[in-house]
Amino acid sequence: MIKVIINGSLGKMGKVLTNSIYEDKNFELIAGVSKYEKENTNYKLYSNILDIKEKADVVIDFSNPESLKDLLTYCKNTKTPLVIATTGYNDDELNMIKEASKEIPIFHSSNMSLGINLLLKLVEITTKALTNFDIEIIEKHHNKKVDAPSGTALMLANEIQKVLDNTEFNYSRCGKNAKRKENEIGIHALRGGTIVGEHSVIFAGTDEIVELNHVALSKKIFAQGSLKAAKFIVNKENGYYNMKDIVTL
Amino acid sequence: MIKVIINGSLGKMGKVLTNSIYEDKNFELIAGVSKYEKENTNYKLYSNILDIKEKADVVIDFSNPESLKDLLTYCKNTKTPLVIATTGYNDDELNMIKEASKEIPIFHSSNMSLGINLLLKLVEITTKALTNFDIEIIEKHHNKKVDAPSGTALMLANEIQKVLDNTEFNYSRCGKNAKRKENEIGIHALRGGTIVGEHSVIFAGTDEIVELNHVALSKKIFAQGSLKAAKFIVNKENGYYNMKDIVTL
Amino acid sequence: MIKVIINGSLGKMGKVLTNSIYEDKNFELIAGVSKYEKENTNYKLYSNILDIKEKADVVIDFSNPESLKDLLTYCKNTKTPLVIATTGYNDDELNMIKEASKEIPIFHSSNMSLGINLLLKLVEITTKALTNFDIEIIEKHHNKKVDAPSGTALMLANEIQKVLDNTEFNYSRCGKNAKRKENEIGIHALRGGTIVGEHSVIFAGTDEIVELNHVALSKKIFAQGSLKAAKFIVNKENGYYNMKDIVTL
Amino acid sequence: MIKVIINGSLGKMGKVLTNSIYEDKNFELIAGVSKYEKENTNYKLYSNILDIKEKADVVIDFSNPESLKDLLTYCKNTKTPLVIATTGYNDDELNMIKEASKEIPIFHSSNMSLGINLLLKLVEITTKALTNFDIEIIEKHHNKKVDAPSGTALMLANEIQKVLDNTEFNYSRCGKNAKRKENEIGIHALRGGTIVGEHSVIFAGTDEIVELNHVALSKKIFAQGSLKAAKFIVNKENGYYNMKDIVTL
Repeated sequence: MIKVIINGSLGKMGKVLTNSIYEDKNFELIAGVSKYEKENTNYKLYSNILDIKEKADVVIDFSNPESLKDLLTYCKNTKTPLVIATTGYNDDELNMIKEASKEIPIFHSSNMSLGINLLLKLVEITTKALTNFDIEIIEKHHNKKVDAPSGTALMLANEIQKVLDNTEFNYSRCGKNAKRKENEIGIHALRGGTIVGEHSVIFAGTDEIVELNHVALSKKIFAQGSLKAAKFIVNKENGYYNMKDIVTL
Repeated sequence: MIKVIINGSLGKMGKVLTNSIYEDKNFELIAGVSKYEKENTNYKLYSNILDIKEKADVVIDFSNPESLKDLLTYCKNTKTPLVIATTGYNDDELNMIKEASKEIPIFHSSNMSLGINLLLKLVEITTKALTNFDIEIIEKHHNKKVDAPSGTALMLANEIQKVLDNTEFNYSRCGKNAKRKENEIGIHALRGGTIVGEHSVIFAGTDEIVELNHVALSKKIFAQGSLKAAKFIVNKENGYYNMKDIVTL
Repeated sequence: MIKVIINGSLGKMGKVLTNSIYEDKNFELIAGVSKYEKENTNYKLYSNILDIKEKADVVIDFSNPESLKDLLTYCKNTKTPLVIATTGYNDDELNMIKEASKEIPIFHSSNMSLGINLLLKLVEITTKALTNFDIEIIEKHHNKKVDAPSGTALMLANEIQKVLDNTEFNYSRCGKNAKRKENEIGIHALRGGTIVGEHSVIFAGTDEIVELNHVALSKKIFAQGSLKAAKFIVNKENGYYNMKDIVTL
Repeated sequence: MIKVIINGSLGKMGKVLTNSIYEDKNFELIAGVSKYEKENTNYKLYSNILDIKEKADVVIDFSNPESLKDLLTYCKNTKTPLVIATTGYNDDELNMIKEASKEIPIFHSSNMSLGINLLLKLVEITTKALTNFDIEIIEKHHNKKVDAPSGTALMLANEIQKVLDNTEFNYSRCGKNAKRKENEIGIHALRGGTIVGEHSVIFAGTDEIVELNHVALSKKIFAQGSLKAAKFIVNKENGYYNMKDIVTL
């Protein structure tokens, strides 16, 4: 049984993770940290991670960049492996994380979905293998989403760009003279209803199409991904790990 | 056995239609008309439709607007039902066709694919039934196609617009503040490889999605559609008919 | 504001419906009925529908066949329109419902999803329009589902069978000599993960494919469907109505 | 410019390959071999490969197992790299090919589609990465296809079986008690119209689905694949190569 502390346990994702731990007999939630919010919880709740007395096997962080300093201090002091799923760090903060990973094992990913991280890998392989295929991306999300295209669609497009030189993104193919340029990647953002999140990368060649799809049905997959990361890192050497280390096995 | 004359028999679509007739034992090709091109053919080839002596059950026209006058004259003189699949007529020409349909039965459609014409009908029904669903259109074509979105995608969008007031088309959803407006119809044009033609209309509501798709695998379907039209019109009263008359049956 | 009584308010679907009513300002939940279970509720909870004193505009029933008799008695006595979403009635019970519909308006459907009921209609139209197309059905559900194919897939297949003579269902195409017979409808049941429910009907002809899809993302759509039914029936004449009456509008 | 000899140049695939070479400025067809059929051709046609005088950079073989002996003799004598796309060899013949690959570079694959061979690789990676996901396969082909499921669907299933122990194939999920077993791989064969060939492998987990698809639009892709193989092998060391050597690059 892996003993877990959740940093940010009362946030949206923290709550989803709490439920996932309760449903999984391989994990035990021994404490949670929430700086501002308070609620009755079935686990010990702290407002400051440095106050925790219990010894955990791993800390999982779904909080925000401000809590980073205390988080790293706690994990280094107690030699506890750390999974970071928080997004929005600046360069200084990213460096702090990498520095800390010399003293403890740290797993860091801005998208904890196993499927999406696998997709990134598959897209890289496919882009290399299918030269001269035209690549286009479709993503679908609910009608409340403010930005377009999704961050994940851009991650996928960047993965292609790492392989192919001089690609251009096209978000608005339209007009009498809108013929596709060879180095174009069309990116199409659909919005409708309550769609949680779908991403497709389409490789179209001469009389042949390869399509790689991912569909998320709930936020639960990000919690599941962080638990998979926790299991992975719990006995690892000090160092900086990410989803590719799991996916490439 | 239905006896057919093809007007424009040596054009791209005329040739596809010729093959479709040879493969279908319900039809017999008795003559073809080609104004400029000449080739050895297995059927009698005329350069002027008015010279034809054979009596046909139906004329199928895949030519161009310039040949309209002679075409209508011939059909009216010989009381031959007419299927028109040519596109690009101006208003005067459209009026000439409607006038002629008082004397002979005329079937006229700018898209002879049975499936696409059915899709138009299904989209109308679905738009009426699924109020408060968000509607988006995806079309996919080969990388040589010059215009975007496709004419057929616009036909589908117009069908929705006939049902819903105040809709707006959005061809380029992109940016930090790109939230979907309620009355928006997103239209997405993918281009890649040798895709013949695909159209999807997506109706996304609360926790429920209806998707209507059409895939064309070759130009043959337009020939097949014109033969279906020929069969339909061969015994009809004088009048002006289109694909909806077949599809709603 | 439409005043609603839920019969079976503490069942799985009853609770989903309760939430849907709280989120919709057009409806007000004035009472619930639960024969066996008791919980603290934000609405008045009765164990017997006949004890209810409040006057509602409509009763929505997500319970079980045993509660039918009291349900009909209450609605007839109080002249309250009724929406029945319960399944599993025998012929006697179905007759009781039809009899009662002479005295009150009753809306009855074993699948309250608007989308699936629309799909039934679209499948009927498409089957009639696309003669000589091969029809196949794919359905996808979670890995806990016991029966295969789904009841809804069979409803779709039956809708096709009403149009086409002599069709045969094929659930297990496999072998060296498994060529498709012309009158066959292949029905394919996929099972995996937590898929809520997907249904596709595929019409494949010569070089042309039409595909009609429905995806359910949660049980909420059945609640939404019953509210749409409630709105529809609240001012109707006495009589027996179902989803087709809404969908064909 | 790569100089090519086609062994089996008047067969169905030989003709498709001939056209592909004419359309590709990187290749030149210098001779063809056809044992039985004769036609007027734009290239030099031989009935026996051993009579060829021209020096080629590569021989591409789309013939049949009987021509193997002469084919290998010719290539060994002239030190010409060889691409074999013929199927149906017995074990002795397969050994002859492997023996010959000690003296010349030989590329051998029973499916020359680049996309399908890539798909095999992606399926292997995904099966390893997504443990505890349920895997199902859908394939779609035209209504004239005699066997089900397709050979390619079985190749995909075998690829999964190499990774997972104790898997069972299920071709006919149907009945009141048809709950999916954990180690099951459902394989679903759709048949309809003129579909050339589609394969999907679906990995369904908790609230997350990954789907890998391949669509073939014509036989041309097998010709293209063999040219890619020719380009790959033309400067390689002696040895036995297959599609995985290209795809993993």
